[in-house]
Amino acid sequence: MKTYDYPNSRALFDRAAQVIPSGIYGHLGPAEGCFIPVSAYPFYIDHAQGAYFWDVDGNRFIDYMCAYGPIVLGYNHPAVDRAAREQLEKVNCGVLPGEIMVKLAEKLVSMIHSADWAFFAKNGGDVTNLAMLAARAHTRRKKIIKFAGGYHGVAQWMQFVGNAGIIDEDVSNIITLPFNDAEAVSAAFKRYPGQIAGIIATPYHHPAMADNALPLPGFWTEVRKLCTQEGAVLIVDDVRAGFRLDLHGSDHHYGFEADLICYCKALGNGYNISALCGKNTLKEAVSSVFYTGSYWLSAMPMAAALATLEELEKVDGAKLMTSLGKQLTQGLEEAAQEYGFHLLVTGEPAMWNMRLTDDDSGVLHQQWVSECVRRGVFFTSHHNLFINTALTQEDIKYTLDVARDAFCALKATRERSKA
Amino acid sequence: MKTYDYPNSRALFDRAAQVIPSGIYGHLGPAEGCFIPVSAYPFYIDHAQGAYFWDVDGNRFIDYMCAYGPIVLGYNHPAVDRAAREQLEKVNCGVLPGEIMVKLAEKLVSMIHSADWAFFAKNGGDVTNLAMLAARAHTRRKKIIKFAGGYHGVAQWMQFVGNAGIIDEDVSNIITLPFNDAEAVSAAFKRYPGQIAGIIATPYHHPAMADNALPLPGFWTEVRKLCTQEGAVLIVDDVRAGFRLDLHGSDHHYGFEADLICYCKALGNGYNISALCGKNTLKEAVSSVFYTGSYWLSAMPMAAALATLEELEKVDGAKLMTSLGKQLTQGLEEAAQEYGFHLLVTGEPAMWNMRLTDDDSGVLHQQWVSECVRRGVFFTSHHNLFINTALTQEDIKYTLDVARDAFCALKATRERSKA
Repeated sequence: MKTYDYPNSRALFDRAAQVIPSGIYGHLGPAEGCFIPVSAYPFYIDHAQGAYFWDVDGNRFIDYMCAYGPIVLGYNHPAVDRAAREQLEKVNCGVLPGEIMVKLAEKLVSMIHSADWAFFAKNGGDVTNLAMLAARAHTRRKKIIKFAGGYHGVAQWMQFVGNAGIIDEDVSNIITLPFNDAEAVSAAFKRYPGQIAGIIATPYHHPAMADNALPLPGFWTEVRKLCTQEGAVLIVDDVRAGFRLDLHGSDHHYGFEADLICYCKALGNGYNISALCGKNTLKEAVSSVFYTGSYWLSAMPMAAALATLEELEKVDGAKLMTSLGKQLTQGLEEAAQEYGFHLLVTGEPAMWNMRLTDDDSGVLHQQWVSECVRRGVFFTSHHNLFINTALTQEDIKYTLDVARDAFCALKATRERSKA
Repeated sequence: MKTYDYPNSRALFDRAAQVIPSGIYGHLGPAEGCFIPVSAYPFYIDHAQGAYFWDVDGNRFIDYMCAYGPIVLGYNHPAVDRAAREQLEKVNCGVLPGEIMVKLAEKLVSMIHSADWAFFAKNGGDVTNLAMLAARAHTRRKKIIKFAGGYHGVAQWMQFVGNAGIIDEDVSNIITLPFNDAEAVSAAFKRYPGQIAGIIATPYHHPAMADNALPLPGFWTEVRKLCTQEGAVLIVDDVRAGFRLDLHGSDHHYGFEADLICYCKALGNGYNISALCGKNTLKEAVSSVFYTGSYWLSAMPMAAALATLEELEKVDGAKLMTSLGKQLTQGLEEAAQEYGFHLLVTGEPAMWNMRLTDDDSGVLHQQWVSECVRRGVFFTSHHNLFINTALTQEDIKYTLDVARDAFCALKATRERSKA
C-alpha cells in the first residue's frame, strides 16, 4: 500500500507558526498529545464528505476522530446543511432568537429522558461550567466532586495547579475521586457534610491516555442515591458520548437519571452549538446564574441541530454506530491476532479506545497507528475514537485491510530490530 | 405613526417558557435589564436584511443593537455569506484546521497594530479568559486589575460574590478600580508589589446602566507606562468596540499599544468566532495555557471573518460608522431639543450611549425608547447602541422622524400627567 507524505501541510504549518501560537493550538494541534508521532499526521484539511476528509496534499482519510466527536452523521450531511442554509437565508445571529430555539428545546425535551428544559450555548465547557454554577446556586454549597482523569473542558476549576495560569483558588473546592468507586463518593459526603454542591462525571469513563471504563454494576444507582440523600446535584457530562450511546441520554442508557446533562459535539453535526438540559427542580437555579454570550441565540446552528436530531432518530443513529463500532473493533482485534499482536479495546463501541498491549511504553501502539494514518485511516494514539453513521461496510473493509497492512509493516520492523 | 403589537412573540414566549429557563435566557431575554419596559419589545426574530429585521409578527425594525454588536456590515451581507457558503461546501468543522485559519491570522496581524499573532475561539469570554490566564502564566502572579462597571464576559472571576453560583475564591484576586484614574492604578501597584499579573479594560468605558466615558488625556499613556515598569500585562478587551472605532485596533485609536487584545462581535458579522491577538512577548505564554474547544478551528466562521475584514477595509468601515453615528446622534439631540427634552449622548458615535436627563429615575428615557421601539426603531434603554455600515441616509431620516414622533407622544403624556 502507498503511504502518504505531507509537504503542503508542513509548508503551511511553517507559515502558521509565524502568526499563530503553537502554529495550531489546542486539541487539534501537533503540540497536543494525540498526534504521536507527529510525523505521521497531516496538519490541514482541504475538504470533507461523509466518512472521509482530504488533506491539503490531496490524501484521503477515513476519519475515525470525526473532528473529535462533532461529525456524527458524516461530513457535509445534505439534510443538516440544507436546514442550516435555509436558516441562513432568513437570519443567523439576530438581535432576538428565532422560533427555531423553541423548536429545538422542545425536541430535546421530547428525546432526552432526564430533560425538562434546554439552555443553549457554544462550547461544551460553557455548559459544564453553567451546570457547576447552577449546582452551587441551587445548593448554596461550594464543593464539587469529579473523577480522576475525567475531562470537562478548560475552565480553571477543571484544570490543575501546575498548569499554566492556574492558581490554588481555582481548584480549592474540587474533590477528585476514582471513577467506579461509590464508597469513595459516600466517604466524601461524610467528610464534607452539607458542603458538596454536586458531582460531575462522564456517563462512562473515557479519559485520554488511559484505557476507558464502563460503569460497574450498581455504581450509578448508588451515586444517584447519595446525591438525592445529600441534596447534591448530579451532573452528567455527555458532551463526548451524547447521541452516540443512546438518543434518550447516556444516563438513561445506564439506567439512572441525571439532574443536569451537558451536550455539545454530536448535537449539531459540526455546527457550533452546545446545550445544558435538566430537571425542573434545577430550572430556577439555571435561570438565576448570570450567563450569556454574543452568539448563543444564533439560529443557524439550532436549525442544523434540529435536523441532526431528526436524522439520528430516522436512522436510529446510536444503535447503528454501536453496531458499526462493534464490527470494526472486532475486526481490528482479529487483525492484530493474525499478526501476533494483542489489541485491547475498551469503552463503548461507538467511541472506543484501543491499545496494543504488546509493549508497556505505548510506542508499539503509536507505530501501528502511524502506519494506519499514513495509509489513509485517521486514528490517534491516546484518545478514544469515534464512529459516524456515514461509515459503510466498504469503509470498514478498507480500514481492516489498512490495519492488516500496518500490522504487517509493524511485524517486519519488529523482526528487523530483533535480528 | 402606527405602533406595533406582538401577539405572535408573546404566544411563542409562553411556549418557550415551558422548555427553556427564563423562556429566553441571557442578554437577549426579557429577564435582562436592557428590555425596559418589556411590553415595548418583540421577543422573536423571523428574518433580517441589511439594517433591518422583521419580528414574528411581521413588524420591521431598524436595528440599532446589531445583535448586540456582531452585525457590523448589516444582516446577511452578500460577500460574507458567499464566503461562508463556499467554505461550507468544502468543510466547516473538520478534524484539522484549514488554510483559512492561517490566512485569517495573517490578515489580523497585518491590520491590528499591536498584533503579532492571533488565536481563535468562540465566545468573547473565551479570549478575555485566555488573556487573563496568559497574563498569570507569563508573570507567575495572581492579581488582575479591572475597572468598575467594565464587562468582560461571564467567567466567574469577572462576576461578583452575591451573583448566583459565585464564591469568594472566584474573585479573591481581582482588584477593581475606577476607570480613568491612573493614580489608583499606580497606588494598586504600590500596594501589591510584584503581585499584579495584568490589567484588563475596554478601550473606553462602556458599562451598561451608566453614561459611557472616553479615556481622559494621558490615562492610557500612564497605564501603559505602569504596566511596562511593573512587568504586568496590559489586556484590551476590544470585544465590543473592535472594528467600530479603528480597523487598526482601539488601542491604536487612543494612541497606545496593548500586550493582548480581545476580539469577538464585529469580527465575523454574526458568524461565530472570537480572537485573541497579541505581542510576540506573550506568544509563548498563550501557547503554554491548556485551552481548547470542539469548534475552535471551524473553517466557515473564519472564511466569514476574512470576508468581513476585507469588506470593512473596502468601505473604511470604522470611519463610515463613526460618521453615521455622529449624524444620527446629533439629529437625536436636536429632536429632543425641539420637544423640550435633553438627550445626553456619551461614548463613541459608532456605539453611542444615550439618556434623557429630564428625570433622574430613567423612566422618562425608557418611555421615549419604548415609543421608538413600537414605531420600528430598535433601541434599548440601558446599554450602548451600535451602528452598522448598511445604514442609509434614508434610515437615519426615518429614525429621526420616529424619534420626533416618540418625543411628541412623550410630551403629550407628560402634559396630560401634569394637568
